[in-house]
Order: sequence, then C-alpha cells, then structure tokens
Amino acid sequence: MRFLSILFCLSIYGNTFAQSDTDAFFIKKIYASALTEGASYPWLYEMTTQIGGRLSGSPQAAAAVEYTRQELETLDVDSVYLQACLVPHWVRGAKEQVRIVNSNAVGSMDLNAVALGNSIATAKHGITAEVVEVQSLDEVEELGRAGLEGKIVFFNRPMDPTQINTFAAYGGAVGQRYAGPRNAAKHGAVGALVRSMTTRLDDVPHTGSTAYEADDQNIPAVAISTNHAELLSDLLENESVQVYMQTHCQNLSPKPSHNVIAEIKGSEFPDEIILVGGHLDSWDIGHGAHDDGAGCVQAMDVLQVLKRLEYKPKRTIRCVLFMNEENGQAGAQAYSKASDAKGEFHLAAIESDRGGFTPRGFTADGDEAVFTKRYKKVVEWLPLLEPYGLDFEKGGSGADIRYLKSQKGLLFGFKPDSQRYFDYHHTDIDRIEAVNKRELELGTAAITSLVYLIDKYGL
Amino acid sequence: MRFLSILFCLSIYGNTFAQSDTDAFFIKKIYASALTEGASYPWLYEMTTQIGGRLSGSPQAAAAVEYTRQELETLDVDSVYLQACLVPHWVRGAKEQVRIVNSNAVGSMDLNAVALGNSIATAKHGITAEVVEVQSLDEVEELGRAGLEGKIVFFNRPMDPTQINTFAAYGGAVGQRYAGPRNAAKHGAVGALVRSMTTRLDDVPHTGSTAYEADDQNIPAVAISTNHAELLSDLLENESVQVYMQTHCQNLSPKPSHNVIAEIKGSEFPDEIILVGGHLDSWDIGHGAHDDGAGCVQAMDVLQVLKRLEYKPKRTIRCVLFMNEENGQAGAQAYSKASDAKGEFHLAAIESDRGGFTPRGFTADGDEAVFTKRYKKVVEWLPLLEPYGLDFEKGGSGADIRYLKSQKGLLFGFKPDSQRYFDYHHTDIDRIEAVNKRELELGTAAITSLVYLIDKYGL
Repeated sequence: MRFLSILFCLSIYGNTFAQSDTDAFFIKKIYASALTEGASYPWLYEMTTQIGGRLSGSPQAAAAVEYTRQELETLDVDSVYLQACLVPHWVRGAKEQVRIVNSNAVGSMDLNAVALGNSIATAKHGITAEVVEVQSLDEVEELGRAGLEGKIVFFNRPMDPTQINTFAAYGGAVGQRYAGPRNAAKHGAVGALVRSMTTRLDDVPHTGSTAYEADDQNIPAVAISTNHAELLSDLLENESVQVYMQTHCQNLSPKPSHNVIAEIKGSEFPDEIILVGGHLDSWDIGHGAHDDGAGCVQAMDVLQVLKRLEYKPKRTIRCVLFMNEENGQAGAQAYSKASDAKGEFHLAAIESDRGGFTPRGFTADGDEAVFTKRYKKVVEWLPLLEPYGLDFEKGGSGADIRYLKSQKGLLFGFKPDSQRYFDYHHTDIDRIEAVNKRELELGTAAITSLVYLIDKYGL
Repeated sequence: MRFLSILFCLSIYGNTFAQSDTDAFFIKKIYASALTEGASYPWLYEMTTQIGGRLSGSPQAAAAVEYTRQELETLDVDSVYLQACLVPHWVRGAKEQVRIVNSNAVGSMDLNAVALGNSIATAKHGITAEVVEVQSLDEVEELGRAGLEGKIVFFNRPMDPTQINTFAAYGGAVGQRYAGPRNAAKHGAVGALVRSMTTRLDDVPHTGSTAYEADDQNIPAVAISTNHAELLSDLLENESVQVYMQTHCQNLSPKPSHNVIAEIKGSEFPDEIILVGGHLDSWDIGHGAHDDGAGCVQAMDVLQVLKRLEYKPKRTIRCVLFMNEENGQAGAQAYSKASDAKGEFHLAAIESDRGGFTPRGFTADGDEAVFTKRYKKVVEWLPLLEPYGLDFEKGGSGADIRYLKSQKGLLFGFKPDSQRYFDYHHTDIDRIEAVNKRELELGTAAITSLVYLIDKYGL
C-alpha cells in the first residue's frame, strides 16, 4: 500500500495522464448499469441452482458450457464459440467414510471428511491404520519410513488466522494438501488426512487437488473439518488413535471438454486483445458459486454492460470461461497454446477467481521486460478508480491467464475482499446463498471499468 | 480518497511523525489477539441468541444491561458501572396486518409489513382506505388536503442503488420514513406505508423510527418489503387500490434504564478520556446483531484485548454501551450531560454503529476550532493503518457520541464495508447468522489500534 501511495504521489505531481470528466462519467455509468441492469446474479443463480457443481468431465460441466454459450449468444456480440480441450476425469464415487475407531476417549466416531481431488479409492472395505500427526512437509521427511510406514499421516498445520490477506494464509498451508499425501506415500504411508484449508473452526470439510508424480505415490487422501482436526489432535496427545477410511474415487480416461469464448471485435486495434475470464469448472461438492461461478458471470457481464451502454471498443474485448482450472488447467493450456500458435497478442488479461465479494482492486503481473512501463500507466488511473475503493498492487494474476505472460501484456487478478472466501472455498456450502448480489455486481463494475480504461488508453 | 492521498503524500515528505517499529509491532499483536483470543463473537452470540431484540424499555434491554455489566466485570478493569437514563417505552403489540383488499389484479393479498417505531395502533378492527403513492415529502405538500384526506399515503422512493456508499443512499431516502407519516397526517391522511430502506428487492420489511411533533400527527405507519412496494406501485398504475391496516402499538410511560460503562484509568493523563462505544438497544424484531450488538461487543473487546496484552494506557480508556439510540438517544444525552457537568474532557470518542463487516477505516468529525490540527495528526498514522485496509475521511461520527462535540476532542465513526448493512438493518434477519466472525474481529482490532495510537501520542 505504501509503495502504491508513493507512486500515486508521483502521479499527482508529475504524470502525463489528465483525468478526464468523460472517463469519470462513463465509469459512473458502468457502475449504475452493473448495479441496476446487471445479469451476473441471475446467471449465477441459474448456474448454481439449476446446474450445480461442475467438475471437469462431469455432465454438469458440459451443461455449464452449453448454458453459458447460449447466454452469451443472446448478447449480440461479434462471435461466440467453443474451444476444445481434453480434461482429466476424476470422480468421487459414493460418499467417503472416515471414522476414529476404538478411542478410549470417544469410542468410535465419524469425522466430517471429503476425499481430495485425484485421490484413489481405498481397498473395497476400507483401510484402518494408526494416525501420525505432522505439522509440515519437513516433518514427513524427518519421520521417514520408520515413522510413517503403514500409517495414516495427518497434516494439521492451520492456516494462519493472523494473516490479514487470507490468500497468504492459504498459501502458507496448502502445500500440505497438494504435496503432503504423495510425500508421505514415498515413506510407506497408506493414507492421509489433511486439515481443511480455512481459518474458521467449523464442521465443513474443504476439498481441493492433491498431486502425485507416480502411481505409487497416490494414496487415499481426505480433508477433515477443522473442528475434527482439533479433536483428533487433542486425542493424539493422550492416546494412540486408529482411523478407518473408505473412499471410492476413480481417475477415469480424459474427456473432451471446452472453453467458452465470446468477443467484441475492436474497431481500431482488433489485434490487441483484452481478456476477461474466470473458470467454468468447480469442485463437485457444493455449487461453485464463489469458486468460480462468480468470476464467470462477472466476465460475461462485462460484455453485457458494454453492449448495453453501446460502447464500441477500439480493442478486442474477449470473455473466456476456462475449463478445468481446479484439477489440471487443460483449458488454460489449450487456450494459450492456440493463441500463441495464431500469433495473438493479449494486451491485458483480467481473471476473477477470488470470489464475488466487495472489490478492493487488482493485482498486476507481467513479463519483466514490459511490466514497469505498463504498470506505471495503470497506476495513473487510480484517481478514477479510488472513489470505488479500488487500488493496484503487484502480485500474481490468476491460474488460467498466467500462461499468457510470454505475450508481454499485463495480467491482472481481480482482488475482492478476502475475509469470507475461505469459509466457502471448495465446500458443500459454496452456494448462491453465500453470494451477496450487490457485492457480486460491484465486481462486474470494477472489472468493466478497468477494461474500459485499457481499451481507451492502451498500456 | 484523493484528498487523503494528498495528505498522505505530504506526510511522507514533510511530517514530524516517525513511524516506529514498536507501533507496527504492537498493532500486529492487537490484530493477532483480536483474531485468535477475541471475545467479541462469543459475546455477540450470547447477546443475540440468548437475549434477542433489545428495544428500549423491554425486559431484553434490561437483560442486556445486566449481561454486559457482568461480562465487563470479568475483565478486571478499574471500574464498571451503570448510568441511569429514562427511555421512551414503545411496544409493538400483536403482529401487524397489512393487506391489499379487492384489487382487480390480485384480489385480497397480505403484504410483508412491520409497524414503524412510534407508530400508534389503528382502531381496534383496523382501517381501510385508498392508497396514494408519493415519491417525496414535497409531493405530500403538493397533494395537500385535497389529495390526502382520508387516504393511506405510500412513500415509495427507493434507496439509490447506484450510490457506492449505502449510507449515502439511506440518507437520501430515510426522510420518507422519519417525517413522511407526520407530514401526511397534517393533511388528513389516516395511515402511511413506507417502502423499506434497502437497495435489495426482497420480502423483508425494515422497521425504524418515525417522528411526530404533536399527537394528532401520529398516524398508524408501517414499512412494507421492497418486493411488495414494487407490486403495489405496479397495481396503482392500473387501478385504485385499497389497503387494510391493523397495528397494535402503544407508547407507554417512559421507563428507567441504563448505559453500561467500564474503564481503564490512565496512568499519566487520567483526565483525557478515549471513549469506545456502541448502542445496547436494538429494534424488537430480529436480534440486533449488526445493529448494534456488533458495535457493543467490539467496544467491550477493546478493553479485553488491551488487558490481555497487558497494555497500561496513559489516558483513560472508557467503553460505553449507550441505551436508546434507536428511538430517543436518552442514554447518549444522559451521558453527555453528566460528562459536561463533571467537566470531563473526551480527547476522542469512537462509535461503532455501522455493522460488523470488514473494516475500511474511520470517519472523523470535531469542533471547527480544533479539528484541523487534530485530524492532521491522525492522518500521519496512516502508514501504520493502511496495511490493514484502513483510511480516514471527514464525515459524521455516530448518533451517540455527537453530543460530545462541544468538549472539542475528535469524534470517530468506525467505517466497515457498507455493502451488506442494509440487507439486515432493522429487520428480523439481523441475527448472528448474518455476522462473519472474522470480519467482526477485524473491527475490534481496527478500533483497538486507533485507541492505542491516540493513547500513546495524544491528539
């Protein structure tokens, strides 16, 4: 923040960008339209309540492709099309069971659990093993085969609740979920429990991808709720605890799927593309309302608002709904590969994948060679965006658009308030009820305003 | 925002306040404590679910006085005491009924309605009259007796959804609720319907005070939900509509009640008081979770956090839970009167009465003679507070502390994100479920941080 304020000082005293009343007026119109004629909320309502969770390869993911394609067709933009990609096809199968067995303190007790994406099934009748708690990946290496063979490893380092940016707290803990099970498997562990990725203490388990590099590293892995993680940890202080796990997951053959793309062709610089996007897939539990239905409908609504305001862009505005962000990013890779092959140039790409909460600004990233120049220009727009509570900061953009970095445009991550995101992330409660209509619409307006400025002034 | 940034620039290049690592470190400790050892959420849980709505004069308001007094006693502060005040005692009585009767389009249909605070009862069996819709108080005067006599006036100007600050939108519409019924009564209207004060379109009616200056200005007045306001307005375009209203409200004799006060005595400047406060009363529908249970538990938690961190203030830190903000401010008036009589000096007062949402900063107000000097000092602290998303802006402080302005300290209104506040304000759904624990705790931390800086550096 301090850095930005200094930049902003410079911009007051020395910059070349003259804030125009026309811009302030048009941005006001964008906000008014998004807040009173926006389509983001009804689209999200439909996508979540009528389609639901949209895991790659699922019938719901296919339905979401068709639904958003049809809705984008109604906008009378220049083109709407699908782009093929081949996605991993993991299925959860029947409800997982995870149970403490024969504890002196609690007897036999079910734990709130969900299998992690990519996890395999247990043996048909499940597995039972002693639990070893660890706080880090380092501890796995210290324990080694002597400490882990035949055991279920329990990764229990919490997300740090004192981090104000909850994404930073997530970044500090998610390695346990991503690499924990495979690393434990290398030392002979037979299963993994991972504390859910949230700062809340509650009964809601959070899924998400776990990774492995060879088939023998893939062991049954589940997330358990934070309340049950606390309970299990307490028990382990006083007794050896055995846990029973039964999962039914399968990795099936990859399946054809699609990115959904719609664009308004630029009138002066059609070859300079401004991308707005989110990811259409979600986890299978819950309805993927914040992650990332919100980002998709906001990206769609950017086109809707610009069309409604009869704005004729100089540059090409392209909405891309990426498939398979959650467990492979096959859609993002197909998109960037095709784009590079066609020699396209993305002047800017803006991804919304941090939930539909009150906007706070954008993170910006880009190739070193051009970042400073382009970012300097963006920061000069702050006087137009600060009245709406928006700022810029340097930082990662988004999992799908990062593949476009080599095209040397500027990559933005839409940055909403992060406080509630990890209450819902990858859970059964990520549903429309968790999304506030007005907060969602303000996100559409923030992104549309940035698109407008980039389109008008370039970078 | 722009003004602040300019001030901040000056502060970088020319101020006398040297940001100290000690301060940054202590503020970090405040946040960590509020987020991991805070008492605000369990207190609010208890106050809402075990006590409920706390309208002045009600048994629940008395229970809240006793509950918070007892909880404050546990903090081992220097004193905890009650301060007497005499509060209005309005009671809603049995559930109000409001119904469209004999419409050609919808027949007979119940409307979602709640009586406004101060409203009288209808005649025993209710009243039925033709509805006249207006958009403004001016329109009432234009219609006059010829247009309004014997009618039910329907105030239907919406809160402007395009205002980014929802309190500004509220300010632009609430005059209809406050002065509409009495102004219509002066022209012979027999009842009033007021569109609920929210930008949402939903089925939830919002209560709140209506005012009158003479008994014959007090007519039965109810708020109806925005969805039903839209429906009624649509009907009125095509037909004359009659509405039946039945309310059972009573204004009883004033009742003794109390402010709840707790303080930590200053070690160096005990006569310089830093007040933190909220209001303990709420409306009777719902549980007053955001309005203003949140503000009360945050003010209490400021003391709890400072005690836990073993902070010994130089100045006196006083937590005040005001009674009767919603319909009279008798508590605030009793407090300021007694304070003035004792010759007290409030160096600063901070009120939290805008909900328990993610903090964005503080508004600041004060007597002209001293404001500029004191505000300049506050703004120099921005580098310590901006990392937590906080800023300062000039603006009204709070309904309860404004009476202290003549003491020439600085008055602050805690300013959380405003987007969701009017979804819940004065409704049956203002309950604990609407409050996010982490957002609430961040508010405690923000207020405590400001208290710390004022205590350490003065104003």
